[in-house]
Amino acid sequence: MARNDQIPIPVVRRLSLYLRELELFQANDRHTVSSKDLGEALGLSDAQVRKDLAWFGQFGQPGVGYRVGELAGRMRRILGTDKKLNVMLVGVGNVGRALIAFRGFGGRGFDVMAVFDKDPTKIGTTVQGSIPLRVQDPAEMRETAERHSIKLGILAVPTPAAQTAFEEMVAAGIRGVLNFAPVALQHDSRVAVASVDLAVHLEQLSFQILTPSA
Amino acid sequence: MARNDQIPIPVVRRLSLYLRELELFQANDRHTVSSKDLGEALGLSDAQVRKDLAWFGQFGQPGVGYRVGELAGRMRRILGTDKKLNVMLVGVGNVGRALIAFRGFGGRGFDVMAVFDKDPTKIGTTVQGSIPLRVQDPAEMRETAERHSIKLGILAVPTPAAQTAFEEMVAAGIRGVLNFAPVALQHDSRVAVASVDLAVHLEQLSFQILTPSA
Repeated sequence: MARNDQIPIPVVRRLSLYLRELELFQANDRHTVSSKDLGEALGLSDAQVRKDLAWFGQFGQPGVGYRVGELAGRMRRILGTDKKLNVMLVGVGNVGRALIAFRGFGGRGFDVMAVFDKDPTKIGTTVQGSIPLRVQDPAEMRETAERHSIKLGILAVPTPAAQTAFEEMVAAGIRGVLNFAPVALQHDSRVAVASVDLAVHLEQLSFQILTPSA
Repeated sequence: MARNDQIPIPVVRRLSLYLRELELFQANDRHTVSSKDLGEALGLSDAQVRKDLAWFGQFGQPGVGYRVGELAGRMRRILGTDKKLNVMLVGVGNVGRALIAFRGFGGRGFDVMAVFDKDPTKIGTTVQGSIPLRVQDPAEMRETAERHSIKLGILAVPTPAAQTAFEEMVAAGIRGVLNFAPVALQHDSRVAVASVDLAVHLEQLSFQILTPSA
């Protein structure tokens, strides 16, 4: 099995997509699937599916395929989402508030446990996530991260403030940052950064609504 | 060349990712790339890259590879983003405001030209996107969509209101909807729907920050 840092990020991303497919199969009471089944919904060849999964170990049995529940469970363990993971959020503006209210994280094992903003008029106020959260001063970031074992953070500050806020998060012990600022963050390999590119989705829709071209 | 509606959505999604890679190559003054180069950054085999691109026609030349600028231009034409596309946004809450302020759409060819909310206290107020936009009554949706030739919409209303707002958009002539409500919208094949799943990104980070497992 490859070391986590040797596996290409897009392969990890596809692991999430395979997991979504497996959950759909489970919801439809399918107990086994083939690499062809798994690939079909994602437009991938069965060879590509097998190649992707080979990064993570041996799965499946010849002639039987993959056991849906077992493979989904192993994928969650690989992704680290078989347990609840605590997350911090930095930047309580519109993006931040939207993300705090977003219901989709909790169901996937992620709990926003702490929120930070450097605006003195916001510090001490309460925002409502799955639990009420008091907006904290970034000066408390390190202590809070340690207390709640937080290693993952969401960065939702305006672009000019992004690099500084990011460095505060790293100094507080955060090792993975989901970045919503449309800016490339300068960082070394000790911290993982994912940036959200919403335009990809619009491009996909744009393509789908185009009439077939000649 | 396949008809647009015959091409698997994940292949279209990868087209966006290939385009991002090509733009990086362009920024680094690379003029030609191989399917191996293109696949490497995305963790895809060169065979998968060629298979994906084959959906859209013949590209590349044996021994030369793909011409970066030409392929990027053709991909933008395929995606429909070689021209500016007007977009509407429905739901001026936190998510909606965040999206209106989001700088990443304009650079990709998408202009938010109209915003709607059914809240009477919001109708008539102005929100600041790349241009100031007056929040409109959903009753004006159809006329506005026609006037600005809007076929794409972003749905950012609370979950309980999502299906109704979605149907209003479809009735107004919208043919592609980017859905931020964590709910599966009931729709037929005349309208394309993409849902944003932010948890995928957190899963990817969760994986990356895990220490290698035994």
